Amino acid sequence: MGAEICEKLMCQTIDIEVPTEERSPASAVENREELFVPPLNFSMVDYGVFRSSFPGTANFSFLQTLGLRSIIYLCPESYPEANLEFLNATGVQLYQFGIESCKEPFVSIPEDSIRGALKLVLDEKNHPLLIHCKRGKHRTGCLVGCLRKLQGWCLTSIFDEYQRFAADKARVSDQRFIELFDTSGLE
Amino acid sequence: MGAEICEKLMCQTIDIEVPTEERSPASAVENREELFVPPLNFSMVDYGVFRSSFPGTANFSFLQTLGLRSIIYLCPESYPEANLEFLNATGVQLYQFGIESCKEPFVSIPEDSIRGALKLVLDEKNHPLLIHCKRGKHRTGCLVGCLRKLQGWCLTSIFDEYQRFAADKARVSDQRFIELFDTSGLE
Repeated sequence: MGAEICEKLMCQTIDIEVPTEERSPASAVENREELFVPPLNFSMVDYGVFRSSFPGTANFSFLQTLGLRSIIYLCPESYPEANLEFLNATGVQLYQFGIESCKEPFVSIPEDSIRGALKLVLDEKNHPLLIHCKRGKHRTGCLVGCLRKLQGWCLTSIFDEYQRFAADKARVSDQRFIELFDTSGLE
Repeated sequence: MGAEICEKLMCQTIDIEVPTEERSPASAVENREELFVPPLNFSMVDYGVFRSSFPGTANFSFLQTLGLRSIIYLCPESYPEANLEFLNATGVQLYQFGIESCKEPFVSIPEDSIRGALKLVLDEKNHPLLIHCKRGKHRTGCLVGCLRKLQGWCLTSIFDEYQRFAADKARVSDQRFIELFDTSGLE
């Protein structure tokens, strides 16, 4: 009896109040398709600006709800075919800045790429816009950090946000890059 | 010489290109006041919806940039005088839901409070709106998690977001509350 109650509770979110005889594989798929799957490390940065890790096919239906106009992709690897097809089908413009993934102490973030990407982020004609790299931690974190600097955030709050996404992978070199980033000419 | 270069770099973000003779305590304060201090754990949740830890006086000038219409406060403690004055001065409406802070295994989140708060969050007349408790981790995390459930997010992504803010203080009981929360009647 105890085991039955437990089992019922565990299933509660999957099929509440659906009598067993009415369930079919098709309706199960239907139910599953209704759930949106945002990419890991997804978040809203500001009005019309989002950030995330690399989106896969599972994330496409969620991304569609954002009504994206552009994507800023910060890795050198070419964009997967499935993702390109999704962009073509939904009319999303892709901007790629090929920033190499480097591990400390050999991190060298190209300031020109971040500056170029930031100009696109600041241009509302590109909104709604998604910024992503691979994990949404370092390259994305640097770009968002520089945006925050431009928005006049104090470094404490910029690093609080950076660390929330980078977690145990937070890099001093990224934070130093943000601290030294010169925002003049971008305001 | 090495020490001088180092010192110059360390000061770069504080007073670039300001000759020493022109610096005065007043201008230093001025410079500091230009920096916005978002509360810790601050983030945008969705269009017109923000979350954070408890905002203090240092955060008021930043909060003003959000143009808030209301604040949803999830603790039983009365709101500090300085914060009430800020709300009065800026015309922000305060909605308080006194959810007690409990430590596991004695966590009991009142579903009615979360449901009531969620109704306010869903009503665009209250936007832009800030949700906060003390640390912006548990009570705020539960409310945002229930909002995500209503938005059709899968639990993996809801928990990814919850854990980003709760970090090493993440509670299984909060996540179970979100999983079991019944969103019917709220859509």
